[in-house]
Amino acid sequence: MVSAVKRILIGRPLKTRETSHAKIGVLKGMAVMTPDALSSVAYATDQMESILVVVIGASASKAYISNVLGFSMIGTLIIIGLAFLLYLAYRNIIHSYPQGGGAYAIGLNDLGKFWGLSAASTLIVGYTLTVAVSVAAGIDAIGPVVPFIGSHKMLANVILTLIIMLINLRGTSESANVFVPFTYVFIGCILLLGVGAGIEAMTHPQSIHMPTSVGMHAVQGMGLFLFLRMFANGCSALTGVEAVSNSVPVFKDPSSKRAQRLLLTLVVTLSLLFLIVSSVAMLHGLTYNPDIPLINQESMLVFGTHGFGYVVTVIISFATMCILGIAANTAFTGCPALWSSMARDGYMPRWVLHKGDRLVYSNGIVFLTLISLVLTIGFDAKVNELMPLYGVSVFYTFSVSQLGMVVRTLREKDTRWVSRAAMSIIGFTLTAAACLIFGITRFTNGAWLVFVCVPLMVFAFSKIRVHYEHVKDDLKYDFTRPLHVAEHSVTIVPIASVNKSSVNALEYAIANFKNVIAVTVIAQDSVDVAEAKERKFRAEWERLHSGVRLIVIHSQYRAVAKRIQRFIELELDLYDNENITVVVPQFITKRWWHKLLHNKTGSILMAWLLLSGSVKVIAVPYRLPR
Amino acid sequence: MVSAVKRILIGRPLKTRETSHAKIGVLKGMAVMTPDALSSVAYATDQMESILVVVIGASASKAYISNVLGFSMIGTLIIIGLAFLLYLAYRNIIHSYPQGGGAYAIGLNDLGKFWGLSAASTLIVGYTLTVAVSVAAGIDAIGPVVPFIGSHKMLANVILTLIIMLINLRGTSESANVFVPFTYVFIGCILLLGVGAGIEAMTHPQSIHMPTSVGMHAVQGMGLFLFLRMFANGCSALTGVEAVSNSVPVFKDPSSKRAQRLLLTLVVTLSLLFLIVSSVAMLHGLTYNPDIPLINQESMLVFGTHGFGYVVTVIISFATMCILGIAANTAFTGCPALWSSMARDGYMPRWVLHKGDRLVYSNGIVFLTLISLVLTIGFDAKVNELMPLYGVSVFYTFSVSQLGMVVRTLREKDTRWVSRAAMSIIGFTLTAAACLIFGITRFTNGAWLVFVCVPLMVFAFSKIRVHYEHVKDDLKYDFTRPLHVAEHSVTIVPIASVNKSSVNALEYAIANFKNVIAVTVIAQDSVDVAEAKERKFRAEWERLHSGVRLIVIHSQYRAVAKRIQRFIELELDLYDNENITVVVPQFITKRWWHKLLHNKTGSILMAWLLLSGSVKVIAVPYRLPR
Repeated sequence: MVSAVKRILIGRPLKTRETSHAKIGVLKGMAVMTPDALSSVAYATDQMESILVVVIGASASKAYISNVLGFSMIGTLIIIGLAFLLYLAYRNIIHSYPQGGGAYAIGLNDLGKFWGLSAASTLIVGYTLTVAVSVAAGIDAIGPVVPFIGSHKMLANVILTLIIMLINLRGTSESANVFVPFTYVFIGCILLLGVGAGIEAMTHPQSIHMPTSVGMHAVQGMGLFLFLRMFANGCSALTGVEAVSNSVPVFKDPSSKRAQRLLLTLVVTLSLLFLIVSSVAMLHGLTYNPDIPLINQESMLVFGTHGFGYVVTVIISFATMCILGIAANTAFTGCPALWSSMARDGYMPRWVLHKGDRLVYSNGIVFLTLISLVLTIGFDAKVNELMPLYGVSVFYTFSVSQLGMVVRTLREKDTRWVSRAAMSIIGFTLTAAACLIFGITRFTNGAWLVFVCVPLMVFAFSKIRVHYEHVKDDLKYDFTRPLHVAEHSVTIVPIASVNKSSVNALEYAIANFKNVIAVTVIAQDSVDVAEAKERKFRAEWERLHSGVRLIVIHSQYRAVAKRIQRFIELELDLYDNENITVVVPQFITKRWWHKLLHNKTGSILMAWLLLSGSVKVIAVPYRLPR
Repeated sequence: MVSAVKRILIGRPLKTRETSHAKIGVLKGMAVMTPDALSSVAYATDQMESILVVVIGASASKAYISNVLGFSMIGTLIIIGLAFLLYLAYRNIIHSYPQGGGAYAIGLNDLGKFWGLSAASTLIVGYTLTVAVSVAAGIDAIGPVVPFIGSHKMLANVILTLIIMLINLRGTSESANVFVPFTYVFIGCILLLGVGAGIEAMTHPQSIHMPTSVGMHAVQGMGLFLFLRMFANGCSALTGVEAVSNSVPVFKDPSSKRAQRLLLTLVVTLSLLFLIVSSVAMLHGLTYNPDIPLINQESMLVFGTHGFGYVVTVIISFATMCILGIAANTAFTGCPALWSSMARDGYMPRWVLHKGDRLVYSNGIVFLTLISLVLTIGFDAKVNELMPLYGVSVFYTFSVSQLGMVVRTLREKDTRWVSRAAMSIIGFTLTAAACLIFGITRFTNGAWLVFVCVPLMVFAFSKIRVHYEHVKDDLKYDFTRPLHVAEHSVTIVPIASVNKSSVNALEYAIANFKNVIAVTVIAQDSVDVAEAKERKFRAEWERLHSGVRLIVIHSQYRAVAKRIQRFIELELDLYDNENITVVVPQFITKRWWHKLLHNKTGSILMAWLLLSGSVKVIAVPYRLPR
């Protein structure tokens, strides 16, 4: 029954060589990996202008405001330039690490273990936050419309997270099918906004206020620090760019080429959309309003708030909401891929490498879901308290990748290495500056957590690797050693009462082993009762005529499994025999819920014995007929 | 390490014959079993007067209000009478069922299966709600004082529930030690309030307004239905009285006598406190105010809101808050005890009978915690939405117990059976009326859920009993049948690679079994790779010189355990042999967290085999040295 449900939810299992069917091209890649990056267009300009609010006085003239907004335009252009620098960096990373891994891979190989693992740690922090924050944002947006969801936000968060998990467990290609329309509708909406604004500007040129360079000199209070903060805030447009480089193997062959093409498409699209949002805001002198995002302000201005124009406005704001909600999906593709890269190097548990029935890293997907659910429940779905962590981690990752490119270029000294190194240095300087500014200005808001979590994670990853190396050494078989076959043996059959299941186990033990002993434990409530119980048990035992010796143990405690384990340990010492086997009778119930009705004494005993001793444990199943 | 933590949290294990040390007397019983009942004094009068609000017009004179409040006083007196009827009923139940079980036991034995199980179901609904609601009430009260808790209510709810669970896992006696002061301080506070009000009345007799019987006739609009609703609401004072009868075996010997004595003490105390709260409200004409509970209004009136008097007022309101918070504890004693009674009759899973290291029903306590956590998280800690369920279930339980007493008295026809039967009939009529009124007036608020849940629970309990009876029959050993010892056998050793752990398992298999086969699974990414892997594996196998046949399976899917299981099933058909054994190599890691780093292929295989086949499964542990 369980497997039938699984079939319905996940789909039929794919063969390993069907891998290519499960992979995606650039078109679907846009839907799976870019929502996180593209959705940042919805708030990046707002973030920049929120800094400028201190400069824009309430009484400032429209012309003055336009000049101030010119700075945010300059910021936008620098960030777009930075996006292309990042493109060049990640293009090379993808080329060099076709197995994926992005900043982690280049950090590990070109800069050293600490850089790689710290980049991975910050990425993981970012991905888990993306899931929790994006889902919470989606629910917050639906809340006012559907009252039931509004009053059960926690439940809705959990259910939506599980739904996204299921979609991803069905396979990357299928999750792309679900999300493709949303992504392209959003892109179309912003392009439409740009076209509309262009027509508006041509038909009503008088409403345009271009900043003048003279005017910009006159703007007061725009210090370097303020500009840098604005720049750092605006850089939030670049979040999610990393995801492509983590997920290279998800693409159809030639996967590196396709990943690079997607990355270029992403950077171009992102830059265009960002440019549209920022320039429309500047030309019309729109400023930051905590209640109405700029995109909404712009669409209201361009398309109006009546009739058909209003419908367009509503579609744009709905598309924005959707893209914010499905940004979670980027993490569901990027994070398991990153973990698998780390597991291949021994820094993550090996089970994240496991590909499920649909050829996705199903364990990684489930694990990511669990972490983000813990975050959601732990922070009462107010995950945006953790946002400062996010900025620091994104820019730290970029800095590591840029620094890695610097080192690599200087080492390899390929063609045009000077100009390429210079570009990477500029890129590193800008991203490192953004990282520092984020870290300093939001240190007390929660960015300090990065300085606690990341070293702990790096430590844990290193420990994992050490463990795997130890296990590898310790399990290595020495082929010069001859096989050692024990001659003597003791076999113990613990039984609770004489019934079909325990007799079945006894018969098996007699058939295969010499020197069989049966053991039973009687709880000692009072001496009289215990002795009566023992007499009854021994009488039944005699009637079996098994010829097997029965040992009765009286226990003052109620943990039967523990008591038997102690008996076996004593037995171990007594017989000095390495070949001790315990035969545990187990009855197997017919329906799943029957299992819930039985004391798992047998299973508990098996677990205890496996954990604590070196005895061999046999389960002898007896199937209940109904 | 796990067991060391357990020692610290729970305490040292107790021997079974130390049971008497773990039991409690009347004094501690008050702390463990009465908070739920006593705390209802804090809101029962409010509940009654909230109904009277419709009668008390805003412009009514103080004298008129006193006359109306006279009805609430009549209600109080009837309820106190009812409490004594319940005392007599439960006194007999405790006498007849010293193993505990209360309304469940009398329903089951004197009325029939449906009555007993439905009473048990409603009791369980009530107990789980008590935990969730009481904890949420406690957190809500602390919230405004400690901002961190106020902003992380869900987390605080979960943690407080877990703390109460831990205290109860330490043993009934120890949980009593923790809660004794709160209970007695609360009782003391209300008594002090009564004394204070008495002094106040004597020194300022002019402030007293006694209702007159003439005046009460004049009160308009006080129909029978309204009076019954008020009565039903006031009956909430009686919640929690049942708990004593469920937990009889928790008391020191003679446990029935002590339980009866506690019940009497509880009923007398409860009546006295209820009388104080209601009569002070009546005499001073205090009416229902949703923001200020009557107890607070009364203490402000009696002790004033300045100086020392204010301190007393604050202490009273703090004590009230505490008793509301620890009402959860009543459920932690009553519910596991009820479950154990049911399990003894086969209606609950047998594991709720398990007494843990501290001689309490530890499985039941943990299970209750889990259910209430699910309720808390599922309802976003707004569990009071479920309160209507609570009233219906409490009175249904009372009705069943009274009806049971009627039947029992009529059957046994002991001394004074007529008067006793008459009393039980009155009790039944009143409690059944309260149950009906609750059920009808709050049907749409959620009481309908009772009509859905209770039948489902009764059905489930019956199914459990049927299952246990089937198992008992099916496992019964036929002693006339001779032991059957198989002669032939096949033994399969699945191995992933040649290493110390798998060779260890192989050596064990060779030592004990004839006809050993080794099996390995190679994942088929592509044909070439798979063939190269197979050649390498076979070469290593030859070097072992084990003389064991190796079978290599190529798999197109990645679920290795499932593939091996299929192979074994085919093998079963092929050899037609009932004595097939699978020897699974397992390596045991040194530290608990190492376990998280390994694919559990071995364990998964064992689970698959145990669930699906009748083969015997052996785990051969290999201990990793570091």
